[in-house]
Amino acid sequence: MADQYAGTDLGGQPPTPLALRWAEPPEGPVLVLLDQTRLPAEEVELVCTDVPALVRAIQTLAVRGAPLLGITGAYGVALAAARRYDVEEAAAQLAGARPTAVNLGYGVRRALAAHRAVTEKGATPEEAAQAALAEARRLHREDAEASTAMAARGLALLDELLPGGSHRILTHCNTGALVSGGEGTAFAVALAAHRAGRLRRLWVDETRPLLQGARLTAYEAARNGLAYTLLTDNAAGSLFAAGEVDAVLVGADRIAADGSVANKVGTYPLAVLAKYHHVPFVVVAPTTTIDTGTPDGASIEIEQRPGNEVTQLIALTPAGATATGPGGVTLVAPLGTQAYNPAFDITPPELVTAIVTETGVVSPVTAGGIEALCARSRQVTIS
Amino acid sequence: MADQYAGTDLGGQPPTPLALRWAEPPEGPVLVLLDQTRLPAEEVELVCTDVPALVRAIQTLAVRGAPLLGITGAYGVALAAARRYDVEEAAAQLAGARPTAVNLGYGVRRALAAHRAVTEKGATPEEAAQAALAEARRLHREDAEASTAMAARGLALLDELLPGGSHRILTHCNTGALVSGGEGTAFAVALAAHRAGRLRRLWVDETRPLLQGARLTAYEAARNGLAYTLLTDNAAGSLFAAGEVDAVLVGADRIAADGSVANKVGTYPLAVLAKYHHVPFVVVAPTTTIDTGTPDGASIEIEQRPGNEVTQLIALTPAGATATGPGGVTLVAPLGTQAYNPAFDITPPELVTAIVTETGVVSPVTAGGIEALCARSRQVTIS
Repeated sequence: MADQYAGTDLGGQPPTPLALRWAEPPEGPVLVLLDQTRLPAEEVELVCTDVPALVRAIQTLAVRGAPLLGITGAYGVALAAARRYDVEEAAAQLAGARPTAVNLGYGVRRALAAHRAVTEKGATPEEAAQAALAEARRLHREDAEASTAMAARGLALLDELLPGGSHRILTHCNTGALVSGGEGTAFAVALAAHRAGRLRRLWVDETRPLLQGARLTAYEAARNGLAYTLLTDNAAGSLFAAGEVDAVLVGADRIAADGSVANKVGTYPLAVLAKYHHVPFVVVAPTTTIDTGTPDGASIEIEQRPGNEVTQLIALTPAGATATGPGGVTLVAPLGTQAYNPAFDITPPELVTAIVTETGVVSPVTAGGIEALCARSRQVTIS
Repeated sequence: MADQYAGTDLGGQPPTPLALRWAEPPEGPVLVLLDQTRLPAEEVELVCTDVPALVRAIQTLAVRGAPLLGITGAYGVALAAARRYDVEEAAAQLAGARPTAVNLGYGVRRALAAHRAVTEKGATPEEAAQAALAEARRLHREDAEASTAMAARGLALLDELLPGGSHRILTHCNTGALVSGGEGTAFAVALAAHRAGRLRRLWVDETRPLLQGARLTAYEAARNGLAYTLLTDNAAGSLFAAGEVDAVLVGADRIAADGSVANKVGTYPLAVLAKYHHVPFVVVAPTTTIDTGTPDGASIEIEQRPGNEVTQLIALTPAGATATGPGGVTLVAPLGTQAYNPAFDITPPELVTAIVTETGVVSPVTAGGIEALCARSRQVTIS
């Protein structure tokens, strides 16, 4: 069986269950994912025993979010090695599963390089698998540490930008513990503000078409006790106009060398609104999201997803609610309707107030600033 | 029985079935509405025999759209008169059913004034009811004529603004025959461009939370054979950035004396995007939508709708699709999630390139321009 629902009820305890964990039951090593497509209705684990199952989990967004995709890619290589599949082929399959987030390929390359290095030195397959796993665990740990550092730097920046001390933050998509080895990127900053008693309100964009804001960010906000309010993406304009947004915090899937930011579709309109209303627009992302090999926004490949994510509503089955049955599909547009469904958009650097990473803040966002940050970061982490 | 589903299958013939019609079956006069909450899955008629049923139809959006609400209000008064209910009380209930669209109160007042005028002259209740009905029919006809005039003026304006001749138009919410006695407002202009062979693409915003774009505009576009593509509201930014939008056309629910436009939530972000990208932003609305008694945007009351329109997905039952059962409800956000759900937003006049009405075009949009248009219009229609 390539994958299965373990059906573990993870209970109601805050904070959120682990998005990903490595396990070694008697049948052999597995990668256990929290199936994010079933949240917030059910906390169900998805157990992946091979790379095709993991690729499917990535493509169906059971596991998602730029930093977590990097960690997943690294563990995927470790899984292939531990189960003696073709590691090079597995790495290629994993790296190609989704095009936009740079972290996926980065994580895959890290674990693959570790595997190759010891193999070239004459290690046994078992030793090489251990090396790949150790590298995945290192990346996982680094990402958790990066979350902590980004949260601290992001909160300091907020306090500097907004001296009032009581922040109303608008966020888009999901950027918390579900996308990270730690507490996330943009959400981790909001969480730090909450813990410091300085979060007045987290405005949560629902984030069509897949509703990661409504399903996942609201779930993480509720679990962590934040004061939050959900809105349709298009209602953000009214909030800006009413002066109800002090800052926008978002994550990133890829940051080009010029500071252009690829992030969940809907980010760019928020950046334009923020500019129009003189509201700070802050991107929070680990340095692994910066891709100096991509010169600018136009060079970033944008994943086009199926039109039926827009033309259909997929009914989930929330426990305790009036259920419509799992997998129920409702057409909302006439049969045959064509949809434009890019998963991401590009925000140019001139609309970004600051990019917060674990090693420093770039502001204003320029190619030179990005370059200097990367030079500093290379002294800290493996490039 | 206050209302009932007549269940008439109106068949597959283009164009769209009538949004509203007056009928006089042996049991007494009724107002028959196409239930817009069931589109595009089913074309079901809702037969209203009294005012409370009609108020409910207005509040649940079975009938909606600023011009059509005006017509509905007028026929509602005629219905009350024909069935010998208290006409004054009925008028008050109808006018207060929804707060933002000015047309509703206007239509109610027109029919009520006609009823009062003949009553004061000693007419019988039967004659007064006939007078109210005649006035509703007059408003209905005027609105159809206004559609035709707006379509012609709007297309001429497009051709002037975009001399290239092949227009890619972005629209929001639903503004076609389903909201009008004729072919609508903004949609009527797109339809005119299509018939003239000058519509390259109609970009249809899905329009969360109630998906009037996906459900209704896509339905009208398909029925009329337009080249259209559906998108999530937040994907419009990518289209602007890619230079794929030549003009934005929207309707209006109320236009204040200073030219501020209240329209479906999500309109204002489009106006900001259009401004940022130097794309014309055109509002198409009959002069009945202009409310000179409201001085500015801040004075327009914005209807706040229930949060469960955002936190839940209501599953409809499209014929022939994998159905989930009528009335099925899926929670998409955690239980207890609070939502911000304004039905409309305000676009200030400086973001509006032009307001197209049946009697003329105001551009640039200023208080003086609005005032001059209204002075001209009063010579044409009853104020």
